[in-house]
Amino acid sequence: MLRKDTVFGVIGLGLIGGTFAKGLHEAGYTVYAVDIDEAAIAYGKTKGWITMGSSDPSLVQECDIVISALYPDAFLKWITENGRYLKPGSLLSDVSGVKRSVISHVKEHLPSGVQYLSCHPMAGREFRGIAYADTERFHGANFLLVSEEDTPADALETMRQVAEILGFGRISTLSAEQHDRMIGFLSQLTHVIAVALMNASSDPDLVRYTGDSFRDLTRIALINEELWPQLFLLNKDILLEEIDGFVKEMMEFRTLLENDDTAGMQEKMRISGMRRKEFDKR
Amino acid sequence: MLRKDTVFGVIGLGLIGGTFAKGLHEAGYTVYAVDIDEAAIAYGKTKGWITMGSSDPSLVQECDIVISALYPDAFLKWITENGRYLKPGSLLSDVSGVKRSVISHVKEHLPSGVQYLSCHPMAGREFRGIAYADTERFHGANFLLVSEEDTPADALETMRQVAEILGFGRISTLSAEQHDRMIGFLSQLTHVIAVALMNASSDPDLVRYTGDSFRDLTRIALINEELWPQLFLLNKDILLEEIDGFVKEMMEFRTLLENDDTAGMQEKMRISGMRRKEFDKR
Repeated sequence: MLRKDTVFGVIGLGLIGGTFAKGLHEAGYTVYAVDIDEAAIAYGKTKGWITMGSSDPSLVQECDIVISALYPDAFLKWITENGRYLKPGSLLSDVSGVKRSVISHVKEHLPSGVQYLSCHPMAGREFRGIAYADTERFHGANFLLVSEEDTPADALETMRQVAEILGFGRISTLSAEQHDRMIGFLSQLTHVIAVALMNASSDPDLVRYTGDSFRDLTRIALINEELWPQLFLLNKDILLEEIDGFVKEMMEFRTLLENDDTAGMQEKMRISGMRRKEFDKR
Repeated sequence: MLRKDTVFGVIGLGLIGGTFAKGLHEAGYTVYAVDIDEAAIAYGKTKGWITMGSSDPSLVQECDIVISALYPDAFLKWITENGRYLKPGSLLSDVSGVKRSVISHVKEHLPSGVQYLSCHPMAGREFRGIAYADTERFHGANFLLVSEEDTPADALETMRQVAEILGFGRISTLSAEQHDRMIGFLSQLTHVIAVALMNASSDPDLVRYTGDSFRDLTRIALINEELWPQLFLLNKDILLEEIDGFVKEMMEFRTLLENDDTAGMQEKMRISGMRRKEFDKR
């Protein structure tokens, strides 16, 4: 079991990092934080979520479990420049939304004696910053542990416990490749679709007539334009494939419509309805 | 003002027709209904929503305002075969989800002395049948009146009152062309996208990892496969254009991604975010 005197280090005290700090503090653990934004550190201290905070990365020398909640590009830069501060015997984790490229880079810069296990709390929001930290968003959400062949079993067990402490619901283990394929389809492709759809019409009158379906479908078009291009580019090969697969389906449906093929359209609708029902069942 | 002794005729006592009957009955009006399904008629009578009901279309001879809630193909067939029963001085309306083709067909078969005004209550659901009739779904929803050059002003005023009686929110007037363009983009294209997306992956594991974004985006993939191919085919020219415009946007984004064009992707995201915000404001 996770020792009660475990000291956590959170790198990047934004929406997700702030929620980790809040949740771990409320569970009784000591949390330190590293962030270049002094206002975020001050906020975390005022709330009592962190005991110590600094812009100096060497603070992680004091931490047993270090969790990076930086954007992927910033995390890759951070580990390159500051990985040496991680103490032997400690565990490093990160919450990056893509895994293959991040994990291979981190492994090159990890000091010996430090374990690494990447994870993905599926609880993002359209807001940014520690002021939006909300542990309720973690409760019942999916938590993914990314296990590679060389991932130590005890690191997996430790991060599983962390996820449980924070109230996550389904905790799954999968490979970096599986993770990036799944995210490429379920999350990245759907964000590209929402962005493309909003760009496809500039008619200002649409707002007057829109219904809930369109609002639901385009909610994610309000996208964090700093973060998502990073995620897309670090998963480019898969996302390009997913875009191509989806566009191919669009064009197949277009052909059915053009040919007045009612039976063909109905078959596509039956398949989509059947598959979609599965998502509501569980 | 609408006379209190106005007799309404509802053709097609399903989800929408049933809701019209229930709402008009609760507002104190007499409602008759025509449906080939005796169980639906019996249900409406048991609930007290309709005073008379029959599978015999000549019942509309007794009605001042007749509203068809049939699927488009069934409505076109109905008006061809039974339009002659509409009484002089009465008003015919329908709730078909596409307008240009429906209106031009109806005008050919409308007896002289009968007014016609097509409308569109934007309150569909994924369920079917009178048992799901729910006047709450009408409250605050958008209601569209389709006005052509030859539409009588008093018919517009009458149907506006009907919409108000039923509790609709924003009541707008637009042309059949405007209506079909708007529906082609906001509703039909988005349904095609949801269906194509669900068809684009057959991975059964996806369900385990999905988040709210994907659920929201694909909710409409549970589609009524009898109704929607009819709506698509009756609006085929516009829907084909909308699919092409959207796929063009997808391919533009694909090119930006392939070229590592972060600034280009961010520009698309800024536009989509700005446009999407407008939808939440009003």
